[in-house]
Amino acid sequence: MPTILGQNQYGKAENRVVKITRDGATHHIKDLNVSVALSGDMEEVHYSGSNANVLPTDTTRNTVFAFAKEHGVESAEQFGIHLARHFVTSQRPIHRARIRIEEYDWERIATSDGREGKHSFVRKGQETRLTQVTYDGETWEVVSGLKDLTVLNSTDSEFWGYVKDKYTTLKEAYDRILATSVSARWRFNWTGDAERMPDWEASYGEVRKHLLQAFAETYSLSLQQTLYQMGARIIDHRGEVDEVRFSLPNSHHFLVDLEPFGLKNDTADGAVYVAADRPYGLIEGTVLRDGCEARIPADLTDL
Amino acid sequence: MPTILGQNQYGKAENRVVKITRDGATHHIKDLNVSVALSGDMEEVHYSGSNANVLPTDTTRNTVFAFAKEHGVESAEQFGIHLARHFVTSQRPIHRARIRIEEYDWERIATSDGREGKHSFVRKGQETRLTQVTYDGETWEVVSGLKDLTVLNSTDSEFWGYVKDKYTTLKEAYDRILATSVSARWRFNWTGDAERMPDWEASYGEVRKHLLQAFAETYSLSLQQTLYQMGARIIDHRGEVDEVRFSLPNSHHFLVDLEPFGLKNDTADGAVYVAADRPYGLIEGTVLRDGCEARIPADLTDL
Amino acid sequence: MPTILGQNQYGKAENRVVKITRDGATHHIKDLNVSVALSGDMEEVHYSGSNANVLPTDTTRNTVFAFAKEHGVESAEQFGIHLARHFVTSQRPIHRARIRIEEYDWERIATSDGREGKHSFVRKGQETRLTQVTYDGETWEVVSGLKDLTVLNSTDSEFWGYVKDKYTTLKEAYDRILATSVSARWRFNWTGDAERMPDWEASYGEVRKHLLQAFAETYSLSLQQTLYQMGARIIDHRGEVDEVRFSLPNSHHFLVDLEPFGLKNDTADGAVYVAADRPYGLIEGTVLRDGCEARIPADLTDL
Amino acid sequence: MPTILGQNQYGKAENRVVKITRDGATHHIKDLNVSVALSGDMEEVHYSGSNANVLPTDTTRNTVFAFAKEHGVESAEQFGIHLARHFVTSQRPIHRARIRIEEYDWERIATSDGREGKHSFVRKGQETRLTQVTYDGETWEVVSGLKDLTVLNSTDSEFWGYVKDKYTTLKEAYDRILATSVSARWRFNWTGDAERMPDWEASYGEVRKHLLQAFAETYSLSLQQTLYQMGARIIDHRGEVDEVRFSLPNSHHFLVDLEPFGLKNDTADGAVYVAADRPYGLIEGTVLRDGCEARIPADLTDL
Repeated sequence: MPTILGQNQYGKAENRVVKITRDGATHHIKDLNVSVALSGDMEEVHYSGSNANVLPTDTTRNTVFAFAKEHGVESAEQFGIHLARHFVTSQRPIHRARIRIEEYDWERIATSDGREGKHSFVRKGQETRLTQVTYDGETWEVVSGLKDLTVLNSTDSEFWGYVKDKYTTLKEAYDRILATSVSARWRFNWTGDAERMPDWEASYGEVRKHLLQAFAETYSLSLQQTLYQMGARIIDHRGEVDEVRFSLPNSHHFLVDLEPFGLKNDTADGAVYVAADRPYGLIEGTVLRDGCEARIPADLTDL
Repeated sequence: MPTILGQNQYGKAENRVVKITRDGATHHIKDLNVSVALSGDMEEVHYSGSNANVLPTDTTRNTVFAFAKEHGVESAEQFGIHLARHFVTSQRPIHRARIRIEEYDWERIATSDGREGKHSFVRKGQETRLTQVTYDGETWEVVSGLKDLTVLNSTDSEFWGYVKDKYTTLKEAYDRILATSVSARWRFNWTGDAERMPDWEASYGEVRKHLLQAFAETYSLSLQQTLYQMGARIIDHRGEVDEVRFSLPNSHHFLVDLEPFGLKNDTADGAVYVAADRPYGLIEGTVLRDGCEARIPADLTDL
Repeated sequence: MPTILGQNQYGKAENRVVKITRDGATHHIKDLNVSVALSGDMEEVHYSGSNANVLPTDTTRNTVFAFAKEHGVESAEQFGIHLARHFVTSQRPIHRARIRIEEYDWERIATSDGREGKHSFVRKGQETRLTQVTYDGETWEVVSGLKDLTVLNSTDSEFWGYVKDKYTTLKEAYDRILATSVSARWRFNWTGDAERMPDWEASYGEVRKHLLQAFAETYSLSLQQTLYQMGARIIDHRGEVDEVRFSLPNSHHFLVDLEPFGLKNDTADGAVYVAADRPYGLIEGTVLRDGCEARIPADLTDL
Repeated sequence: MPTILGQNQYGKAENRVVKITRDGATHHIKDLNVSVALSGDMEEVHYSGSNANVLPTDTTRNTVFAFAKEHGVESAEQFGIHLARHFVTSQRPIHRARIRIEEYDWERIATSDGREGKHSFVRKGQETRLTQVTYDGETWEVVSGLKDLTVLNSTDSEFWGYVKDKYTTLKEAYDRILATSVSARWRFNWTGDAERMPDWEASYGEVRKHLLQAFAETYSLSLQQTLYQMGARIIDHRGEVDEVRFSLPNSHHFLVDLEPFGLKNDTADGAVYVAADRPYGLIEGTVLRDGCEARIPADLTDL
């Protein structure tokens, strides 16, 4: 045969699971989008169409919903671990499972007497939380992250001293807006020791906090510098994380030229910007704990 | 000529204006998407292509940015009023201006010493705030609103006692999730009296609060009932609003049948739901202050 | 009661119906997205939550799928007529039904021996075809249309002779690209005479053809002129259509300034343009058969 | 320093270039979306913010537009080769360039006298064509592809004989719809020999044709089998391609249960299906020319 099969994986994607837990009249919500990808001894289904080794994607969907009941949803990471372990250990032909989860956060609606609602929620709508759990029967890899966290510094950003070639027309900037929509992934150094499992929920909140603080507190000479500071701050403060990867569109805000209308539009006060769509700068990079290996792919895909 | 021109309007849509105001080291941000639509004596440009009465859409864009500097952006409503007045009063052929504005809300990033950031922001990402200002040289109409405010009650919702015909298979529900993504528009009764202009910013916060509280506090026998309660609550509490229109998708959350796996999945505790995409119920309706006329179109378009 | 109910409607939106008809080994496909909106005696469900007059949205969904089997899908318009008639005539509290349908077109995949495939299809992917059927028990209104039909003339477009005010900086253009993504709706003058029902499928093809030809063959001095020509051409050629409404974004293609790099970029040959996103001009207008009344709303919503 | 920099890249993304070439009154159009990513000696900009090695993303944008004039746009692949070579050879700190291009296809509008329009176009709207050119100063890699090519077989698809575990409820299917939205990437074995450069335009058309024919002509026992056949057919017929990777969502079309309404809905004729959104099966895999190495990443990202 002149062709052969390479890497392959399959499963049910985007299972929208909502779990409501009741604590008396107070309810708790977990809102997930779970995607399963399995791989293993799958040559035959590709070559001849024999499904003898294929657990249907429909079954992987059923398993996601059943596990939400059987194991609960303590955290997206923990839920992914339950699922990945199940597929690899219960099905001989399956050697590797990758579970990707998006999580949507909700907050309680305040009632008219000023208290927190017990079972009424409004979707927070800020970033989407992500996790990916991979298990091959021996080693675990957990990469968590977020996307669509839009941030902006209205000052403390400059850009100058760059290379100028014959196609360069950009003017240097000494006080500009720096804005981006953060897409980040961070890899935990946990590889399966049940005794030393991170507190996934607490970890997420702390990583997110350091990321935001580093963005806000870095006087920036380039978006690359800000990227590095965000990654370094996370690794410095969070021993459970060894690697952080960012994809940061430079969401350009250009000062509008108002001189034709007799108006001065500088950054001193009341500056008017146009928020541009395309094209945009795109800055991507990995920050590593010294001595650690990079494993997050250079081209991020949605987890 | 066997054909004639009917209603028409034109202008520059989606001008992305960001205004930064400095109060010492503390900055304030207004982030708008402004669309201009003008109409008037425009027969000739349609019939012959003569642009003698046409103020270019490019000029309407310039005006938006220049006005952000000249008049500031106190509120989206006030900014729309400045623009609409300008186009109608400065250009003889223009008889009517409609300004639509989307507003994106930002919150301050907390710094590592626990204080609010002075010039660092994270986009709130919840609902999008809307307004539409229309002026024909005599009367003002202001319709504000919001879209993409996603809410969910995990109990206190039933649905039974409905009509059953030969195509009815739905089972009655006595404890279900009620979820929707609110799209709402509310019309102010202000028509131009400069002395009695509403406090647009305060009004928005109050309307939004009453809408959310009514959603949370209504024990619901149908989404229509909840819709009406939300509208009535707003009109009861806010004298400046005479009419509210809602478009509410019923974002179905179905209890998953886990019996094939020997699991009981009822609402008593730990219920697992699948959040469905399409199809969805769509409930639309207007609530009016008694004696007032409905003017918001029955089919909402994005403002 | 200080508040009252205004216009309201409800039903199941976005039912994705695919119908396969077999003609021996040759199959035919109809691919629709059907949305139902019903109104009538619905005060009580809003005021008290009583569903005694409410046919569930779930039932309207079932009806859509059952009717695809019972009546077939001859055309989207004909299918909408079956559905609208059913809801209004079979349910006393329902006084008006509005059926909106999107249709996706497919073409056959050619096989390796050069013939048309019998049951293999590739989605055409160009415009989305639309229709809206409204029935109140007496009168029928059918409005069909399309959206996302992207067209471009690379010459034969000018723009000059416009109004200049203090905010005008635009330079006149004597040879520009004219591009838009057509959203159009056209109203049939058919109001229910079964003997004189239009051939909906043939009509769509003809209207679309005249629209495209008018776009291509109009030497344009403004997008408004092109809009009018497209509408007039349709009404002139198609006696079944009395009214056409367009929403035409002016998809700007700007000549790039290459002078800083010693390059001349004029339209004579090899011109390089940047296709801009936002803002964009937005030109909307209605063309009517003389003596007819405009009934398509000025602000189009997706059918 | 406890942290170090890993892989990084930067550049201007999504430059929307439109090139019009005139051949007398007949015009030709190339419509591209070009993204530049550069990497090299970029430690310092990350560590200290020094931009001494940084060619601004704004300059990369200018270069894209200038090159469209200077070199023309013969094909997306050839245009990417010009750009990648320029960045790597003209800037000492830049060691690697990756150019990604989306291409949108247009067809001519027929005029009313039945001829092809000379300078009027309608966007084809089917798949988006993709290419990625990578150059590190020594070796070239060209990966082309497409996305959003939606195909459907209305018969000749079965699914049975699969693994059944305690979570399996799926019924076997002996005549089902098989539908997917193809995302594919194929890697050329060309590595830089100017004499033996493929005819990129011709190659694209042929690869696309074989892909579609293999989809249509494979009697399918699983989507994996169809995937493999599509890849094998391409490699068998096109000597310039060594590797093909697919990401194929299984776009489920479920037979609707119409028995509650006394209707039989089988596949014999006039079958009614519901096209489902989420979840969906997701089948991904690589097909290789025997003896060749896989280099397309297992998780595709938009080129």
